[in-house]
Amino acid sequence: MELRQLLEEKSQQNYLIYLPNLSIDCVVFGFYNASLKVLAVRLKGQSLWGLPGGYIQKEEDVDSAANRILQERTGAANIYLQQFRVFGNLNRSEGFFEGYPDDLWHKQRYVSIGYYALVNFSEVNPVMDLFSDACEWLDVQDLPEFMMDHRLILDKALSALRKQLNYKPIGLSLLPEKFTMPELKKLYEIILGKTLNRGNFYRKILRFGILEKLNESRKGGAHKAPDLYRFDHIRYKEALKNGLQSEW
Amino acid sequence: MELRQLLEEKSQQNYLIYLPNLSIDCVVFGFYNASLKVLAVRLKGQSLWGLPGGYIQKEEDVDSAANRILQERTGAANIYLQQFRVFGNLNRSEGFFEGYPDDLWHKQRYVSIGYYALVNFSEVNPVMDLFSDACEWLDVQDLPEFMMDHRLILDKALSALRKQLNYKPIGLSLLPEKFTMPELKKLYEIILGKTLNRGNFYRKILRFGILEKLNESRKGGAHKAPDLYRFDHIRYKEALKNGLQSEW
Repeated sequence: MELRQLLEEKSQQNYLIYLPNLSIDCVVFGFYNASLKVLAVRLKGQSLWGLPGGYIQKEEDVDSAANRILQERTGAANIYLQQFRVFGNLNRSEGFFEGYPDDLWHKQRYVSIGYYALVNFSEVNPVMDLFSDACEWLDVQDLPEFMMDHRLILDKALSALRKQLNYKPIGLSLLPEKFTMPELKKLYEIILGKTLNRGNFYRKILRFGILEKLNESRKGGAHKAPDLYRFDHIRYKEALKNGLQSEW
Repeated sequence: MELRQLLEEKSQQNYLIYLPNLSIDCVVFGFYNASLKVLAVRLKGQSLWGLPGGYIQKEEDVDSAANRILQERTGAANIYLQQFRVFGNLNRSEGFFEGYPDDLWHKQRYVSIGYYALVNFSEVNPVMDLFSDACEWLDVQDLPEFMMDHRLILDKALSALRKQLNYKPIGLSLLPEKFTMPELKKLYEIILGKTLNRGNFYRKILRFGILEKLNESRKGGAHKAPDLYRFDHIRYKEALKNGLQSEW
């Protein structure tokens, strides 16, 4: 079925189920092959990509709606989701549904609540919805064109993630259970968009007290085998809740 | 006029002007007499206090709405406002308008967008709106009871402010133009809710490179007159935009 027909068929029902003028957009990050990925969908017959999103049921908490939307799209439950910003400009989706009926649900003005999630790449199975013909991981450093203001939403999520590095630990769901310091450093470098000094990074990250050094090393490769680490889950969760040891 | 009559009179008109189910709540901080203050309003005939808030016009950006609301309540324009969180639980204002007609504008479910602002205490003239009989500065460390989830909103704003101390400068609009190090330290201590080590604080704050030491000192008092500082506006704004010099 064509996109237009699908949208028009759902329109009346949506008015009954969901809060008007409000939407949710999810920026789902995964880490694979030393690169940061983002989950994206493509509407049927469209060339532009978009972020997975949805609406809030009239009798549903906003955070629950975000979890439901993400679960529908990834098959994964209990994902750590973080609200980061509201996108409320008048003209944010202007013109996207031009030519469609004015009372179409999707043609409303939407104030969108942005969430980001950090997920375990290997545990996610991207699922298409009715309206899309693709749901895929894209590389954050090599992105195609996005619809509406979705590229801005993605950039703001990255920037929120960058700020979060200053007061929250990151990596638990992104990295495999055991990882090396160079792998952890690479994750930080991609999020920060810059190369980090090796010594400073090691010193700072160890000072947080959330890493446990294992008596194992990563075999293979020409270089000296690097040591393996894992997160201390209890101290990691404490740091998530109370913030990293501040220096104030 | 009584609160109920006023609300009912405005109800139909509000449906025409504003987006339904969406509200804005503002947490306005000021600093005076070495204590952190927050602007609060009290509805007519009510004992509980609340945060100043309002709605978003159908043809208005969300950020513009927040600015308009704040200007109406403080008389001050161009205040630095920061969106910090959406409050979207189903039951957040449950029961508050019990006994009022079900179609009353104010009795809807509201998803509320929280903003906080740091303002110059001396430039603000708190203004009551139609529905309130008080609009005052309250001391953050000695607060009365708040309506609905407004105390939670205030606490989350404080916590956002606390995180912001890790990556953004704070103080420009809160402190007088010239201030002493102990005054700046006091501001940080109130926001962080703990006493700071004097030497560490001075070292860290000076390293940000946003302060200018003046050739003046604060006269009066029994102690040695403390040096006066002011913010370097250009570097302060750079730091606001790009974040404080990170140690990563």
